[in-house]
This record gives sequence, structure tokens and C-alpha cells, in this order.
Amino acid sequence: MTRFHSEDDFLALIDRHFPRAHDGVLVSRGDDAAIIDCHCKTCVTTDLFLEDVHFRRAYFSPADVGYKALAVNLSDVAAMGGRPTGFVLGLISPENADREYWDEVLAGMVTLAERFDVPLVGGDLVRGDKIGLSVTIWGAPGASDRFLTRMTAAPGDVLFSVGELGLARVGLAVLEKRGLDAGGQWPAAVAAHLRPEPLIAEGLILADIPGVSAAMDVSDGLARDLPRLLPAGCGADLFFPPTSLHPEVTAHAAGNGRPPEKVAVFGGEDYALLATASPAAWSIVRKRLPQAKAIGVVTQKVGFTLNGAPFDERGFDHFG
Amino acid sequence: MTRFHSEDDFLALIDRHFPRAHDGVLVSRGDDAAIIDCHCKTCVTTDLFLEDVHFRRAYFSPADVGYKALAVNLSDVAAMGGRPTGFVLGLISPENADREYWDEVLAGMVTLAERFDVPLVGGDLVRGDKIGLSVTIWGAPGASDRFLTRMTAAPGDVLFSVGELGLARVGLAVLEKRGLDAGGQWPAAVAAHLRPEPLIAEGLILADIPGVSAAMDVSDGLARDLPRLLPAGCGADLFFPPTSLHPEVTAHAAGNGRPPEKVAVFGGEDYALLATASPAAWSIVRKRLPQAKAIGVVTQKVGFTLNGAPFDERGFDHFG
Repeated sequence: MTRFHSEDDFLALIDRHFPRAHDGVLVSRGDDAAIIDCHCKTCVTTDLFLEDVHFRRAYFSPADVGYKALAVNLSDVAAMGGRPTGFVLGLISPENADREYWDEVLAGMVTLAERFDVPLVGGDLVRGDKIGLSVTIWGAPGASDRFLTRMTAAPGDVLFSVGELGLARVGLAVLEKRGLDAGGQWPAAVAAHLRPEPLIAEGLILADIPGVSAAMDVSDGLARDLPRLLPAGCGADLFFPPTSLHPEVTAHAAGNGRPPEKVAVFGGEDYALLATASPAAWSIVRKRLPQAKAIGVVTQKVGFTLNGAPFDERGFDHFG
Repeated sequence: MTRFHSEDDFLALIDRHFPRAHDGVLVSRGDDAAIIDCHCKTCVTTDLFLEDVHFRRAYFSPADVGYKALAVNLSDVAAMGGRPTGFVLGLISPENADREYWDEVLAGMVTLAERFDVPLVGGDLVRGDKIGLSVTIWGAPGASDRFLTRMTAAPGDVLFSVGELGLARVGLAVLEKRGLDAGGQWPAAVAAHLRPEPLIAEGLILADIPGVSAAMDVSDGLARDLPRLLPAGCGADLFFPPTSLHPEVTAHAAGNGRPPEKVAVFGGEDYALLATASPAAWSIVRKRLPQAKAIGVVTQKVGFTLNGAPFDERGFDHFG
């Protein structure tokens, strides 16, 4: 273990991973603020990623920590149908910070940043008892020049998902129980929890289809997030044929005597996209995004049904 | 003490303090990301504000916490010569969060947000052991359409400050020693530490004067920050006649047998502006900002002198 000699030493480590020069960045890190060349319509979002709240060191490698802190923020931009264009990073580090640990955190993060060509333009660095990362990210709209928002669906719209539901929740359960050994039996679930895939390309495609009426990313579980997607006065009828779920979700549910669709509905941290489209637009979505799955229909009355039966919409709540 | 029933309950509290509608905010809080109408050239900065690192509950009222978390970010926009146009807020709250506490935090923050007409457009909310606030703020340039940066001064430029140097450091010292009782004897110093004034109007005036060549805000103390302001290969000769310092700085230094100019130079969290101007521009600065004080001159050789003697530039370092 190597300690940092100084804050400048830590900042030099960041510079080794994240280049400063980038199209659209007029002044990068090192000033009081960065100066960016913004698209006139910009989306912006922020998410904290804290040790023992969002991740455990026991089974998150440092690279996974860096990856996921950025991935969950990219997922919000994906849910807007946007293209990420820059981010800032606040780092909380214990006093006896281990340089190798942070080196790997940053390496895990920069790999993802490079994939999406998104520059780090600023940040802050402070001592704290546990590790924490605060990311604020922004993005521009794609070719359609529109963002996808919530609360804009209409009754009769098809409700669909892109990405697996419940799989990350299974990953969390098996990681908490067996640590990284769980990866042998549950590789997809463990990967879904440690390394969720930000669906940027998919979000841009959806924003490009005019009849796609609303979108969000599922972070607190479908049951809790769905009411946030739909406009007031609307509900949804959901149907999850067992074939629509990932085999690891089905297998884990079977092993615990739970209906698999409940795992999918009450899961969390899926970072799947949940969206709605007019029936006409849905046929276009299916062609352009074959992995999209219809999971229900928006109704004109409040409340939700799951495979025909009513269900309670309470999911994960940080303050419940 | 009242606990929060749910995350929605916490979010409703935020809505009570911070209105959603604002010019330039196309979609506010409540979606995956906000959508903002950006000036094409935007400055953006982030700062964490953590319990027991940046503030102690013993002498920071909840309203002071909310105020200062936003103020230190506004100060960075001021140092760019910018006008703040929006911010996002990450909140870390202990599990048994006290609703009245957060109500006052938000009230302290919104008072300042309203003064500078800057909307809160998004955020994140998580559990944590201690209270923490993560602010990311952005801004537009003023009438001159330029931002003030660092590293752009020239030898011969006048170095000047706007705001008191060392006063906040005295405030920290007396608050740590005597708590809020210190306010009776050291009212200005205590106020400088608890409620630093973001110098937005002053920064906009400086950006509007073409010969002002560089600017920053002093957060880690002049000794540590000054090398970050000046271009490579430059240094500075500083002069602090005792009359240039606040009487509470002079009195506190005298009581501790320290030269007052050392308190001013090695202080921290001043959130004063430190800037440079050509000699011709300096005469304009003096007219338009009579409170600006010349404190030195930029030299063509590396290193610093203080009232004629060399000094070591080490200040506060989170990792030193």
C-alpha cells in the first residue's frame, strides 16, 4: 500500500487516467470551474455512490467501483435519450488513502468514459471515513434534438423494457450471501449488479422514434419506478410470461420459492430502460431494437396489475 | 424530532423550499435528468461539503450548513466572472434523519439561491453515517461574454484581492476553541467562516474589465492557492501593510504572538477573490471596485516574497 504524499499527488493520478483535452471542453480541470461548449438544450443529472450504501468493498473490485459510479449516471442520460458530453467527479477518500486502490478505481472509470467519449472536466477531493464518489453528468440530444421525459405517456401506449429486470437484484442477493464465489453459478446476475451496462445507444434510438412517448431508467425497482413514469391518473397492466425473464432470475426465484415475476418487479438497480410507445411506434421499436420487450400497457385508471392480479407498488426506499 | 416517512416525504420537503419553475429550466427535478437551456459557453464546478471535514454541527446551525454548501460553489462561479444559472444537489443523510434539521438546511440554502436567482434542477438522496452535501453548479458569462481563468497573468501585473484574507481562518480557530460564544468577541471572523459571501457581482465586474488577466477564489489559503493562479515560471512579491488586514485578524494574531500577515497568507476558506490586472486596468478596478486591495505584483521569477522576505508556499492540504 502506498499513501498519497499530497492532494497534488492524487490529482496527478487523475491526470494520468483522464486526459484534459477534448472537443467541446474549452477549459478543463484545474481552474475554479471548467468551461464547456454546451448544446443549447442540455440534460444534467447527479448521483452519489457510497461505500456500504451502494457498494461493498468485500465484492466490488476498485475497478468495479469506478465503473459503476459512472455507469449509473450514464444510465440517467440514456434514459433521457441523450448523448453524454461531460462530467465532474467529487471523491471522498479515507485519510490513509491507498494509491493503488484509487488507481484501479480511476482505471475502471476511464475505460467506461472512453467507450462513451465523455470527458472528465472537474472535481473535488476530500477526506472522509468511507469511500464515496459523486458524479454530475450532462448530455446533448441526438439527431432528433429531443429528450425523452417521464409523465408523457398516454393510455393505450405499450409499456416496454430494454435490458433485464430483476437480474441485478438476484446478483446483489447472491453476492451478499456468498461474495464473489457466487459468480460461478450466477455469472449474469453478478455482472448485472457489478457492471450494469449504460444503454446510451438504445436511448438515442428511442428518442429518434417520434411515437416513443416516455422513458426512464429502472433504479429502485419496477414497482417503485413505474408510478414515476406514468402521468397522474394512469396505471398499467403488466404481464411477465416466465420466458420474458432471464434464466438466472427464474432459477433464483425457484430456489427461493418466489414467483419469478415478483423478483423482476420488486428488484432494484436494474438500470434497464422502461419506456412507452404508441402501438404504431412499438412496431418500429421492435424492428430497431429487437431486444426490447413489451411488458404491459398503460391504462386510464390508477393502479397496477401483474399477470391479472393487483399489486402493491412499494419498492426500495432510502428513507422508508 | 420528526423522522421522514419515505424518500418522497424528503423530496416533498425540498419542493416546499425550492420552486421547480424557472427561466431557462425546460424540465426540472423529478425526471432522470433535468433539461436546461444552456448558454453555449458554460462554466461548471462541483464541491463536496461534509460534516466533520468542512463543518461541525457543534457550531454550524443547520441553516449555516445549507448556506455554506451552496456559497462555496457560488464562489467558484464568481471566480470565473460568471453568473450562476443552475445547480444540482446530492444529499447524504443519516438513517434517522431529522426532518426539522433538513428543513432548516434547505431554508438556509434557498435564501442564498433566491438572492442569486439560481434554480435547483435535480439531485440525489442517500443514507450515510454523517451529513454531506454535494453541489454541482454552472453559470453563464456576463456582458463581456468571457470567463476569468487562472494561469493567464503576466509579469508586472498587479495582484489584488477582493474580500478579507485570513479572517475566516481566525473564525475557524475561535469557533473550534470556544464554539458559538466566540461570536461576541470575533463577530466578523465567525461570520466569515460560517457565512462566506459569494462575490458574484464583483466577479462579473472584473470579467468586464479587459485588462483583468486572471482570477481565482482563495479556498485553501493564499500561500497554497497563489501558485495555482500564476503561470509557470512566474512568482510574486506580496506586501501586506497591517492596515490592509481586518482588525480581528490583527487582534487575533497579536493575541497569539504571530505576525498578522502570516495569518492572512496561511489562512483558508477565505472565499475572497484573488486576481491580477495590468497596471492600466488596475486603475479601472480601483474605481469600479473600491474594496479591491492591491497585495502584490507578479514577477518573472519563480518564488514568493512577503514584505520583502521569502516564504514557503505550503498551505492546507487534504492529503498532506
